[in-house]
Amino acid sequence: MPYVNIKVTGGAEAPTTEQKAELIQGVTDLLVRVLGKNPATTVVVIDEVPMENWGIGGAAVACRRQQRC
Amino acid sequence: MPYVNIKVTGGAEAPTTEQKAELIQGVTDLLVRVLGKNPATTVVVIDEVPMENWGIGGAAVACRRQQRC
Amino acid sequence: MPYVNIKVTGGAEAPTTEQKAELIQGVTDLLVRVLGKNPATTVVVIDEVPMENWGIGGAAVACRRQQRC
Amino acid sequence: MPYVNIKVTGGAEAPTTEQKAELIQGVTDLLVRVLGKNPATTVVVIDEVPMENWGIGGAAVACRRQQRC
Amino acid sequence: MPYVNIKVTGGAEAPTTEQKAELIQGVTDLLVRVLGKNPATTVVVIDEVPMENWGIGGAAVACRRQQRC
Amino acid sequence: MPYVNIKVTGGAEAPTTEQKAELIQGVTDLLVRVLGKNPATTVVVIDEVPMENWGIGGAAVACRRQQRC
Repeated sequence: MPYVNIKVTGGAEAPTTEQKAELIQGVTDLLVRVLGKNPATTVVVIDEVPMENWGIGGAAVACRRQQRC
Repeated sequence: MPYVNIKVTGGAEAPTTEQKAELIQGVTDLLVRVLGKNPATTVVVIDEVPMENWGIGGAAVACRRQQRC
Repeated sequence: MPYVNIKVTGGAEAPTTEQKAELIQGVTDLLVRVLGKNPATTVVVIDEVPMENWGIGGAAVACRRQQRC
Repeated sequence: MPYVNIKVTGGAEAPTTEQKAELIQGVTDLLVRVLGKNPATTVVVIDEVPMENWGIGGAAVACRRQQRC
Repeated sequence: MPYVNIKVTGGAEAPTTEQKAELIQGVTDLLVRVLGKNPATTVVVIDEVPMENWGIGGAAVACRRQQRC
Repeated sequence: MPYVNIKVTGGAEAPTTEQKAELIQGVTDLLVRVLGKNPATTVVVIDEVPMENWGIGGAAVACRRQQRC
């Protein structure tokens, strides 16, 4: 019954469809293995966040990637 | 003062503008009726999640809908 | 397959077990009725937030309730 | 190590790149100043929510802005 | 730089400290392996949700576990 | 109308009531100043996360603080 939300940077860094499928399967397997959860009711939601909307160290990732910050 | 976040699949399965308005009104009414909350400060946010970003049973909904998983 | 998160104030204002059950059933029914979603995979999570951790209008609810703010 | 999520209305009301940078820096500075947190591991994610997906007072903002609700 | 939030049922079903450590390490490894993310800035937050606050199929887990629903 | 969620470590590192009030006022002021938002409908929710439930670099903060990881 777990619910998992994974947020990663999108745009040029967005995961491919295959990578998303791997994340969904991988985290579901982890919850089954570690906690014995039922995969049928394990929900995973992946959010792709634009790089100018994601901040770390006080600056947007968009800015950091271009070494402007 | 409640805050409600509703996540549903988007894309071909995205709710229409009218359906979103019904969800917003319905969940606000529910909080007023059950808990006596003030609707003026009840916030509802609806997120539409792409079907390849939503997993259940270890596979993406996009994959399940096409019966490839 | 929807996921719903409801945040309300807790502590002295926390919903009872019966009220939580009503919220869970009410919001699930709403998603079935408006969007035709499958209730078996509709997940609802209720968070009870301490009144000093919830702010509106720039002040904590704990403070507003005591008319100190 | 804090994590901050800021949700604002998007579309015509979306913040500019400069405003997002100000929000990221401002909230990071606040956590450093008030709680002594390490900015290097302070994460900020800004979500822009379409106006028809944001409800308050039982109606979508899209509807309220046009004074139809 | 990813952020992962894992919600599971708490109380009698709460994960142990060791299980939480396994979840944190497992999901961080997954993001490193699949997406090449930097583990140093990968944040994982585990929420333990009381069973009467978690609904599925229109009823609280607390109720379902006792086969009253 | 913004909604802000701030997650910080709790327990021995939990913010005091005064610090929470400063965070609520500070982030509300920031949204008013940068985006011209209405403070009356700006909602802030602070979550205090137990240190064994917060992971970074693949290990729980509880473990890192004790230099066991």
